[in-house]
Amino acid sequence: MKKTPWTLDPERFFDPDPAQRRIARTLYDSVAGLPLVCPHGHVDLRLFSDPDFRFGNPAELLIIPDHYVTRMLYSQGVPLEALGVPRLDGGPVETDPRQIWQTFADNFYLFRGTPSGAWLAAELVDLFGVREKLNSDTAQAVYDQIEDCLARPEYRPRPLFDRFNIEVLCTTDPATDTLPHHRAIRESGWHGVILPTFRPDAVVNLDTAGWRGNIDLLSEVSGVEVVSYASFVQALEQRRGYFKELGAPATDHAAVLADTEPLDDDEAEAIFARALAGRMLPGDPQRFTAHMLSEMARMSVEDGLVMQLHVGSMRNHNDIVFQRFGLDKGCDIPRTSDFVYGLRPLLNRYGNDPRLRLILFTLDETTYARELAPLAGHYPAVRLGPPWWFHDSLNGIARYLDQMTETAGLQNLAGFNDDTRAYPSIPARHDLWRRACANWVAGLIVRGIVDEEDAAAMVHDLAYGLAKRAYRLG
Amino acid sequence: MKKTPWTLDPERFFDPDPAQRRIARTLYDSVAGLPLVCPHGHVDLRLFSDPDFRFGNPAELLIIPDHYVTRMLYSQGVPLEALGVPRLDGGPVETDPRQIWQTFADNFYLFRGTPSGAWLAAELVDLFGVREKLNSDTAQAVYDQIEDCLARPEYRPRPLFDRFNIEVLCTTDPATDTLPHHRAIRESGWHGVILPTFRPDAVVNLDTAGWRGNIDLLSEVSGVEVVSYASFVQALEQRRGYFKELGAPATDHAAVLADTEPLDDDEAEAIFARALAGRMLPGDPQRFTAHMLSEMARMSVEDGLVMQLHVGSMRNHNDIVFQRFGLDKGCDIPRTSDFVYGLRPLLNRYGNDPRLRLILFTLDETTYARELAPLAGHYPAVRLGPPWWFHDSLNGIARYLDQMTETAGLQNLAGFNDDTRAYPSIPARHDLWRRACANWVAGLIVRGIVDEEDAAAMVHDLAYGLAKRAYRLG
Amino acid sequence: MKKTPWTLDPERFFDPDPAQRRIARTLYDSVAGLPLVCPHGHVDLRLFSDPDFRFGNPAELLIIPDHYVTRMLYSQGVPLEALGVPRLDGGPVETDPRQIWQTFADNFYLFRGTPSGAWLAAELVDLFGVREKLNSDTAQAVYDQIEDCLARPEYRPRPLFDRFNIEVLCTTDPATDTLPHHRAIRESGWHGVILPTFRPDAVVNLDTAGWRGNIDLLSEVSGVEVVSYASFVQALEQRRGYFKELGAPATDHAAVLADTEPLDDDEAEAIFARALAGRMLPGDPQRFTAHMLSEMARMSVEDGLVMQLHVGSMRNHNDIVFQRFGLDKGCDIPRTSDFVYGLRPLLNRYGNDPRLRLILFTLDETTYARELAPLAGHYPAVRLGPPWWFHDSLNGIARYLDQMTETAGLQNLAGFNDDTRAYPSIPARHDLWRRACANWVAGLIVRGIVDEEDAAAMVHDLAYGLAKRAYRLG
Repeated sequence: MKKTPWTLDPERFFDPDPAQRRIARTLYDSVAGLPLVCPHGHVDLRLFSDPDFRFGNPAELLIIPDHYVTRMLYSQGVPLEALGVPRLDGGPVETDPRQIWQTFADNFYLFRGTPSGAWLAAELVDLFGVREKLNSDTAQAVYDQIEDCLARPEYRPRPLFDRFNIEVLCTTDPATDTLPHHRAIRESGWHGVILPTFRPDAVVNLDTAGWRGNIDLLSEVSGVEVVSYASFVQALEQRRGYFKELGAPATDHAAVLADTEPLDDDEAEAIFARALAGRMLPGDPQRFTAHMLSEMARMSVEDGLVMQLHVGSMRNHNDIVFQRFGLDKGCDIPRTSDFVYGLRPLLNRYGNDPRLRLILFTLDETTYARELAPLAGHYPAVRLGPPWWFHDSLNGIARYLDQMTETAGLQNLAGFNDDTRAYPSIPARHDLWRRACANWVAGLIVRGIVDEEDAAAMVHDLAYGLAKRAYRLG
Repeated sequence: MKKTPWTLDPERFFDPDPAQRRIARTLYDSVAGLPLVCPHGHVDLRLFSDPDFRFGNPAELLIIPDHYVTRMLYSQGVPLEALGVPRLDGGPVETDPRQIWQTFADNFYLFRGTPSGAWLAAELVDLFGVREKLNSDTAQAVYDQIEDCLARPEYRPRPLFDRFNIEVLCTTDPATDTLPHHRAIRESGWHGVILPTFRPDAVVNLDTAGWRGNIDLLSEVSGVEVVSYASFVQALEQRRGYFKELGAPATDHAAVLADTEPLDDDEAEAIFARALAGRMLPGDPQRFTAHMLSEMARMSVEDGLVMQLHVGSMRNHNDIVFQRFGLDKGCDIPRTSDFVYGLRPLLNRYGNDPRLRLILFTLDETTYARELAPLAGHYPAVRLGPPWWFHDSLNGIARYLDQMTETAGLQNLAGFNDDTRAYPSIPARHDLWRRACANWVAGLIVRGIVDEEDAAAMVHDLAYGLAKRAYRLG
Repeated sequence: MKKTPWTLDPERFFDPDPAQRRIARTLYDSVAGLPLVCPHGHVDLRLFSDPDFRFGNPAELLIIPDHYVTRMLYSQGVPLEALGVPRLDGGPVETDPRQIWQTFADNFYLFRGTPSGAWLAAELVDLFGVREKLNSDTAQAVYDQIEDCLARPEYRPRPLFDRFNIEVLCTTDPATDTLPHHRAIRESGWHGVILPTFRPDAVVNLDTAGWRGNIDLLSEVSGVEVVSYASFVQALEQRRGYFKELGAPATDHAAVLADTEPLDDDEAEAIFARALAGRMLPGDPQRFTAHMLSEMARMSVEDGLVMQLHVGSMRNHNDIVFQRFGLDKGCDIPRTSDFVYGLRPLLNRYGNDPRLRLILFTLDETTYARELAPLAGHYPAVRLGPPWWFHDSLNGIARYLDQMTETAGLQNLAGFNDDTRAYPSIPARHDLWRRACANWVAGLIVRGIVDEEDAAAMVHDLAYGLAKRAYRLG
């Protein structure tokens, strides 16, 4: 069977109508070359702190750590062991990267029409120069091609940072992290801008596994002996200051619910004391987390760190997979969220204060038009984070823009996050966002809703300006 | 920089596909000239009761009272004081209308892609003949232009009523209102048809601020001394009769929840007695409101007034703005609604009775396809109000039509409401609805779902007939 | 007025863009002739067990039993009596089929833009060769035409089975059914493949009307005297075996909620004993149903029957209609569903087991992208049933595909169900699905998301392969 070379459609993700498509292409071309602003993500810093870091083999790079990939194969009956995902008990898993890659290629058709499929195709074609569509037959040749690339110096993380045209890349770091890799990168004299983000979940959420140890670590790194709620707050403030000194623009908080009801000091002290003593009452963790979200907003008002809030993931839905493989294996499932009543205490205290910047993320799209857009279209503090996780897709972006902007306006959006561990996928993710946005704005032009002057400004903001301003990045 | 004149695209809001657009245009042209039926809104009656009423300056007309406009600027950090919004404490606010207008113009880009932006553009271009796009540079010239218009007799409210081609305009009036302006308009011999709507929320919702005073006023205007639940019901029936005499076609009810569980008479008496005595128990207001919704349906069965129910707005989410500026400042936020269990008691009593007409409005679009369309596609009493408030937009209308009509059919819709305080925006709102509907029906034609004969009837109904029939307007 | 003949647009349901439409047409043509796989439905078996079965008159065939049709007319004030729907009290209803047909035709415009309208048009035009659009004027001539057809042998159910090109048709049968019609069909030597589905709701849901009698019947047909929970489980296992012997591929379960929390054996015994004794406690039926869903999954693991779960219908919302006319009269209304917490107990026990196949159906579209797609994109056991009931429509299918596939991938879908009592509507329903799917895949091609090779495979799977594989139909 004759093969046509595997290519990416230069007008991919645009609507088919010729008028809209022509405008979308023009708008996209105007922003395709802008630097990437990456204010929220999870790239491993060791890629950059060691100037000579080299990626491992193709399976280690693209499959084993990517739970978007492994979950899909698992859902169709491929054991995670066959994909080389390490077991917590050290039990046997596939170790031959070529076999893992073959299994992946055999099942690559599962990703048809998915964002993972689009990102993977863009990585293979654009980054690694693959010219044959990935399938069972081409698997090993594609593996060879990627392996060859990875051996070359220009495929090390630092040169790729320039090739990817990244202006700033933020990581997500525990409150107890002393940020040695960030320090090392700074001290190395390398020009790449990589900034930390303060994520205190593991000390703030009292039911975190290993919480007590995290508190000891917090005492150690902050120099504040955490023996009470008051000293806990002091230690957190010390850490925020430390992160800020190292350039952190923001904090990040994950919560199942958006509740923010504050406690009075006595209650907070009592709960914290019970937690230290290992004698928590039912409901203590939830109430304390809610309180701490309000408290974190108070600190943001004072120190100017942008506050990100990711709401609604029910983590580790699958006990068996969690027990065997641990966190982040594709079994976190979204649930409904309420922002109206949940956020009200926080917003009534700080939502009118221009010093607070609160960026909201949801996995419950029903809150877009009903709750989030009206909140962002009123409170000066609120901005709307981009479609998150499962919703960072062509349809997800269209739903987000259609449901958010009519009520909130474009200026209350926070631009794009790639939110990824998968460093090589960053350009593909931003590209999909930029194309989807260009197409969406082109849709406004062809419907006579905005003119070309407005459209150009909107696309530029979506691709670049909104993220920089939302995160106060210069 | 050379400027092209500011114009409105004659095919705005239509899909770009040439075939669909051509049909949409034809369908739209067939209804663009139909009179406007305005069965639900909030226009100030003083505009019409005084034949010589003149609008104030452009800021007083278009900015200060329009919380759609002021909320958006507030969300981006513009104090409401800078927009001339009066403070309850009489504190200082901007009083120079030209300065307010300049601030608005400086921020007009915030409305790109929003329905407010579309309505404002249509008002400026179509009504006031503005030819330069509003921005910082053109602000004062545009102000001059509007000011000139407003000085001319044809820009008084009554001549505009004819220019707008309004067939009937309904207002929303408290149950305790003696409707003096409605009387004055009738007695003036002017030909405009303006009808009241009976809205008893302020006496029915026991937790309304000032409720006790409202009850005294109800006693006074009804001639029924309200000393008990029984006399309360009597007084309400008297007021409904009074409104009906003055031509009211409908009642209107706002509730956070759609609960309609009736109380027995003893319970209703007991709660009402506690309310009169100022000794309500927790839950009393919610239970009484639910009961009164069923009771109002009973009265509608008897007197034929159409019953409108607006569900799901959590009012005054922002305490600071509420305390400083009062009601209706853009800080009412939608919440989830349940119609399935909530409405069941009412519908089981009266939903099969053709004398009841119950028009339902929601801010929770998730109920469209799941709850409202199935209810309306079954119960003879139920009709579906148009997309409300934040959802009265191009995308909101498309979502409404796509999610409602397949299950409910077109004839269970209630046509359009402009639901506005902003009198000059009425034509633009109806025009957007008519264009969106024409485009949607054109989409059915190009997909072979309806033929041209059906399409013509559907567009006519959406633009005109459904509203007249749903509200029994003759 | 000159009439054009009533025809069906050969490109109906396709998007208007010429490029997308051309591709959609090609893709559709490639699957239009595939056999129909009908793994879930409610066709009356007497149509097939009697080789000489003849349909009654057009009203008996197309109106009286079709609650999609009667509910819509009822919602607009047509009494169900006027449509010949039998009253439980034997009260008078219209008996003249021509009068019923006339009433239907007078109101046929109510179905404009609805899926019922599309199916009915396809039946009239394609199956019965009607050439005049149905309305008040043409009603009786159309009636004549259908009546003529029904008198002909080729319009009997068995020849239509071949004309419809049905490969397999599954019915839905109570656990207590001895399946005599299935046996008769098998023994008749007819080549049509018709299989039963095991639906135990009437014995599993303790609050079913007539539950005690159903249990006695279960004892009788299973040969296991049901005197306890243990013997109840034994009897169910016996019945599952019986159904399986007769070729049943699947079970089916309806539940208001997706709760699956198991009970321990003592609790299950205690609740079952209370039910047998007629002394249930509040909450017993709900807890027992939840438990039995997990128990049914356990049995499916053991016997390989595919498990279907239909969640979220609040049955018989309208007491008056229920009391007068009984079940299935268009007054079942969907409600919100939670799959995340509800299904977790079942999935944690059996969701990782490849022997379980659990097909989920919802009436709450908000769960598509938020809950169901992430669950199906992770758990090996889970597949996603097609859009159900009100959502089996052009827009409903588009929402389903857009919201499910990006996260779950196509291979976690279960293909199509027609889920109908209306035998003559089966081809129209599959045809709408196939057209909608072809159009949706064409949309992926024109956006550069999939290539033609992938598209062809996807459309074939959607039209045919997924249903066969999901239901393990060979």
